[in-house]
Amino acid sequence: MRHLLGTTDLSREDAILLLDTAAQMAATQEREVRKLPTLRGKTVVNLFFEDSTRTRISFEAAAKRLSADVINFSAKGSSVSKGESLKDTALTLQAMGADAVVVRHWASGAAYQLAHGGWLHGSVLNAGDGTHQHPTQALLDAFTARRHLVADPTGQGLDGLTVAIVGDVLHSRVARSNVHLLNTLGAHVVLVAPPTLVPVGIEPWPCTVVHTLDQAIETYDIDALMMLRVQRERMSGGGDAFFPSPAEYSRIYGLDADRMNRLPDHAIVMHPGPMNRGLEISAEAADSPRSVIVEQVANGVAVRMAALYLLLAGEEGAQ
Amino acid sequence: MRHLLGTTDLSREDAILLLDTAAQMAATQEREVRKLPTLRGKTVVNLFFEDSTRTRISFEAAAKRLSADVINFSAKGSSVSKGESLKDTALTLQAMGADAVVVRHWASGAAYQLAHGGWLHGSVLNAGDGTHQHPTQALLDAFTARRHLVADPTGQGLDGLTVAIVGDVLHSRVARSNVHLLNTLGAHVVLVAPPTLVPVGIEPWPCTVVHTLDQAIETYDIDALMMLRVQRERMSGGGDAFFPSPAEYSRIYGLDADRMNRLPDHAIVMHPGPMNRGLEISAEAADSPRSVIVEQVANGVAVRMAALYLLLAGEEGAQ
Amino acid sequence: MRHLLGTTDLSREDAILLLDTAAQMAATQEREVRKLPTLRGKTVVNLFFEDSTRTRISFEAAAKRLSADVINFSAKGSSVSKGESLKDTALTLQAMGADAVVVRHWASGAAYQLAHGGWLHGSVLNAGDGTHQHPTQALLDAFTARRHLVADPTGQGLDGLTVAIVGDVLHSRVARSNVHLLNTLGAHVVLVAPPTLVPVGIEPWPCTVVHTLDQAIETYDIDALMMLRVQRERMSGGGDAFFPSPAEYSRIYGLDADRMNRLPDHAIVMHPGPMNRGLEISAEAADSPRSVIVEQVANGVAVRMAALYLLLAGEEGAQ
Repeated sequence: MRHLLGTTDLSREDAILLLDTAAQMAATQEREVRKLPTLRGKTVVNLFFEDSTRTRISFEAAAKRLSADVINFSAKGSSVSKGESLKDTALTLQAMGADAVVVRHWASGAAYQLAHGGWLHGSVLNAGDGTHQHPTQALLDAFTARRHLVADPTGQGLDGLTVAIVGDVLHSRVARSNVHLLNTLGAHVVLVAPPTLVPVGIEPWPCTVVHTLDQAIETYDIDALMMLRVQRERMSGGGDAFFPSPAEYSRIYGLDADRMNRLPDHAIVMHPGPMNRGLEISAEAADSPRSVIVEQVANGVAVRMAALYLLLAGEEGAQ
Repeated sequence: MRHLLGTTDLSREDAILLLDTAAQMAATQEREVRKLPTLRGKTVVNLFFEDSTRTRISFEAAAKRLSADVINFSAKGSSVSKGESLKDTALTLQAMGADAVVVRHWASGAAYQLAHGGWLHGSVLNAGDGTHQHPTQALLDAFTARRHLVADPTGQGLDGLTVAIVGDVLHSRVARSNVHLLNTLGAHVVLVAPPTLVPVGIEPWPCTVVHTLDQAIETYDIDALMMLRVQRERMSGGGDAFFPSPAEYSRIYGLDADRMNRLPDHAIVMHPGPMNRGLEISAEAADSPRSVIVEQVANGVAVRMAALYLLLAGEEGAQ
Repeated sequence: MRHLLGTTDLSREDAILLLDTAAQMAATQEREVRKLPTLRGKTVVNLFFEDSTRTRISFEAAAKRLSADVINFSAKGSSVSKGESLKDTALTLQAMGADAVVVRHWASGAAYQLAHGGWLHGSVLNAGDGTHQHPTQALLDAFTARRHLVADPTGQGLDGLTVAIVGDVLHSRVARSNVHLLNTLGAHVVLVAPPTLVPVGIEPWPCTVVHTLDQAIETYDIDALMMLRVQRERMSGGGDAFFPSPAEYSRIYGLDADRMNRLPDHAIVMHPGPMNRGLEISAEAADSPRSVIVEQVANGVAVRMAALYLLLAGEEGAQ
């Protein structure tokens, strides 16, 4: 692996290697001294064209635990906003010796463009591009699900499990990344969304679609229920005509205690955060023992450590 | 000690331990190689809901001198401003492995809430919450006063000393933290403030109150004179009706050369910075040999190193 | 050397020492482990009163490669913007133990003021002050030119070479720094600019002036052609009456393929970045084999490592 751009082109073998490495990284985080010398002398640049404090500090923590130097490059107010092309930004980062560029961009495809422009010798890690991909989120979700739902998980996928993803799938890079990775790992994916907010038809995805959360719970043996974050700005005045009102959304797609109690006993509840408590998820569901939402955050650091390690220490690490 | 939230609940023993440890830290800063390996592998998060470059970089310098990794989390523009609760932010930082969270918040009580919500395993250091507390500022003030006014200071408090605090005490977390800490350390505190800007009566503080700076200088043998920063925004148009005009404030509460010369010979002049030169303090007073204002900044790094050390290396450090 | 403030007062000996040290630093960046322990325990503060992501991250990368701790202090939104004087900011940084302050300021002369105010014990590195100086940019330009144009460059200047600088010289700290450094190093400097945008007459510079790029190419044997960045904001509506329109500028001063092909075979093309492709430089010129623009960025890190090393490790380094 040289880059981590999305989950559609991630082989099952590589996905499982990432998850197994993340498990090793998670184990190191239980030790008293958590810092590993692995990436000492390497430079990781966080190139963020959109604010995302959570994702940025997760990558920053991951890189620092591996002893890399981290440089934060917020593209707001920089020459980028004065019209510099992605190409020139990339050439600049390359010249400054970036070994990895973690990129968050509002445009779908930006990470691919950065990786395949031939401008960088180092690795590109997609930290979310438009409505396209957010692969480390999907990996941390898969890691969390595997840890809870698969006995003796090392070397395993998610074969035979059913994962439901609930919400605005159409605009969600988290959903898109998850659908493909879950499929690669052998899970059955059920999308739960309003008909107006499903991308199926435009681009066939390997999944089943239903239109209410109740129907999903009644029809399938759900092992993991993944709630998507509602983008409130899509709902308000100038928003998207295809989007339900908050009350309607909450009524049909929100996870409350009643719906949660109708899931199989072993089922887990996930959310990529930050949550809109009371909208897509009730406080009771968010804080229930089924919820693995906080653990997802911790697993995010482990997964990002694994990705940085495999991309940056891969060849030399074998020496 | 697990957290450092305020000075009201700080025992005399712990306060003196902090000051003595700060003295050791200050000594290490005189060496050629100032960096200590003490907190290697620990992660300190600066969680700032308000801008405060000075306080942030003081904590950042302190943590880095102890070899901790520092992650700056400015809550502006983050998911926090999108409605995430303090609880979810705390759970996120916990999951990411924060060993200490340094928090600055506009709401009084936020640091207590963060520490006592049961969300974090690590330590919380209050870097200023609303008009409530700013304990490291009070500790660095006490440290500076002890260094100048107490012979052979190790193990000592400030017994028998008189400290005057001048300005808008009502809205000042610096004043509040200082009054309690100075009292704990045995000093006599004289508050100098307009009647409208004294919290006494609402909440009895262990101190004496006078209403002009001249009266304070004439009445008491002041060992340390602590000028508070004027919040100019409270004075201007839409401001606080109880606040004097700048000219009036300066006339009654400002420290000029004349007033400074009427202090006892050994008295020191302090200010938490940044100063409004010409308003609460004249340039002559700010730059006089009595002024220890610049030294306060240096002592701030030492005190914060001491606090981080005692909170984070406390148990393990004993091993 | 204690500070690096500009190029007018830089001796030939010191300039060559900086270039030679930069060559050594560049060599270390080819190694597998690029990080040097040289400045371990030192603190470098990036004090930026103007946004400049490129320059900031170049200094940040340089300092981190030398194992210094880096603290970024953006003066926007800080107490500086609340009226704190440069003096008080400097005293604060001194008290916090800054060994070097890298300063970018909108006011010409700010770096000199910071260095010579007697407030700092450490070193000041000018990262651009108003229209005045940007010495590390000039050094990286000279380093790049020397590397390409001088055989066996160690210990050498740029004697006998002709360097043309094209654009808005009047407002350019890059041009000003370059003219003086190039002169010190023995090069002949040709300025190419509209008559309204040349500072000659006001302050005699050691250089020749022509008013069209074609004339420069026809008249001189140019070894290095340095294109300045056009400040688009000067051209637009509320802009500078002395500034040509974009079309006119591009026609008379822009570097296109035709003009590039009329340069001597060995001539190199330089630009401080970020480029306005299609305005002062065509994409063909920017990406041609003659272009050393990307290499300039890499050399910028090496030059800044050299400057930090010579200023901070100079005396102790000899021990």
